[in-house]
Amino acid sequence: MSDNILSLNLATTRQQWGFAEAVDGCLRHGVTAISPWRDQIAKIGPSEAAGIVRDNKLRVTGVCRGGMFPADTAAGRQAAIDDNLHAIDEAAALNADCLVLVVGGLPGSSKDIAGARAMVHDGIAAMLPHANASGVKLAVEPLHPMYAADRACVNTIDQALDICEDLGETVGVAIDVYHVWWDPNLAAAIARAGRMNRIFAHHICDWLVPTRDMLLDRGMMGDGIIDLKSIRAMIEAAGYNGPQEVEIFSSENWWKKDGDEVLETCLERFNSVC
Amino acid sequence: MSDNILSLNLATTRQQWGFAEAVDGCLRHGVTAISPWRDQIAKIGPSEAAGIVRDNKLRVTGVCRGGMFPADTAAGRQAAIDDNLHAIDEAAALNADCLVLVVGGLPGSSKDIAGARAMVHDGIAAMLPHANASGVKLAVEPLHPMYAADRACVNTIDQALDICEDLGETVGVAIDVYHVWWDPNLAAAIARAGRMNRIFAHHICDWLVPTRDMLLDRGMMGDGIIDLKSIRAMIEAAGYNGPQEVEIFSSENWWKKDGDEVLETCLERFNSVC
Repeated sequence: MSDNILSLNLATTRQQWGFAEAVDGCLRHGVTAISPWRDQIAKIGPSEAAGIVRDNKLRVTGVCRGGMFPADTAAGRQAAIDDNLHAIDEAAALNADCLVLVVGGLPGSSKDIAGARAMVHDGIAAMLPHANASGVKLAVEPLHPMYAADRACVNTIDQALDICEDLGETVGVAIDVYHVWWDPNLAAAIARAGRMNRIFAHHICDWLVPTRDMLLDRGMMGDGIIDLKSIRAMIEAAGYNGPQEVEIFSSENWWKKDGDEVLETCLERFNSVC
Repeated sequence: MSDNILSLNLATTRQQWGFAEAVDGCLRHGVTAISPWRDQIAKIGPSEAAGIVRDNKLRVTGVCRGGMFPADTAAGRQAAIDDNLHAIDEAAALNADCLVLVVGGLPGSSKDIAGARAMVHDGIAAMLPHANASGVKLAVEPLHPMYAADRACVNTIDQALDICEDLGETVGVAIDVYHVWWDPNLAAAIARAGRMNRIFAHHICDWLVPTRDMLLDRGMMGDGIIDLKSIRAMIEAAGYNGPQEVEIFSSENWWKKDGDEVLETCLERFNSVC
């Protein structure tokens, strides 16, 4: 049996709702899975957030986000690792399916992307013992190559899987259609992730044409050009039948609408085009 | 011996100079290689453009651009092929090293990127006999994945090489650092292109952080984060020692400066950071 339900990534309504309000909104619409951001957890404190999750029997499909490993100095890299250890504790408190890792881009004025990628590998390796001891899976999220310089130097599923392969079965991938839909190797990469049993999350939204802002102009499912049903089929064929997590950054559109309207639209589209 | 000289892609000074003015500018600065756009050729006519090239013994490193194959209808696809046949004639008239192909994105409201990619393959195959008869090489330019929806659904060197492999030795790649610098597989892909003897052009500029516009905010070499010397070394090791062609779309910066200043800066950076 599939538990292919909708999960609300709380970034989608971050301008409208805090953690508790978002949960109330979800429950009004029958949504029982969420994925909060750390700043949203911090605002009410991890234990209150954990209590809300527990009391309402919510599934937490991920905590966003750890990562951001590359830094100019050894002290900077250690600070990133320390922060990631706290992120693990928060994910554990919420009993999250995984901690999502947005790995970081080039540090400072560096042009050495291979070096940055090595720092990412080493950073994940350094946090892994605490993650394993805490029972928290780590989901590397490959980001679209347009973010390679400043947000994430892991840019394809295959590249993420190479890291996973090296670090063991508790390190997997979060597949966000926005970041990977263009990949000529997508079908094979998803199949490989499935064979490795490393698909830890499935994020959805849409790619708008034109895209007016590189970060904050993601589209609602169905408003863009991503073949969501095809990618879902690939992911299900690879053995992942978990929730699809809606994550939409939209400063000029969805962030300006009423939260209930946003969530209603997410559900309607989830049931029609995803 | 290397002929690793600078070529000016005339898009770099398109707001300042037409074809003839750009050639005059190049000659003032000792630049003897250019790459014009078809609208710039059309404005003075192909025979006058060819005369200017011949009289000044210029090397034409490419004509920009053919391509844009996908279309909703068979008639639309045929119109694209017909236009590409004219582009071949213009490239032949200018004795260009290659005709650069920006292959096109998803047609209409399509979400079928595999289908668009098939249209690209078939479009190149359809224009190839005339290209071969005319002695014009075709250079597929993989574009950055952020253009996959609306400009080019060929997004990595490897993907382009698969097409080249299928279509024969007169179909190669134009490697533009802006589009490929992030590719985790870059070194291997360039080496493969070299083994196939299919590197037909090498374009340079830089990736700015932040990038303020997805199309028109390319940087001058040295102002961004691309490791130009490393990529040049990969390309030279793969056997290509031809000109490096500077192509900068920059609506808010370089297009607003005096053409001579732009070209002087190109040369200074070419000699220091490329």
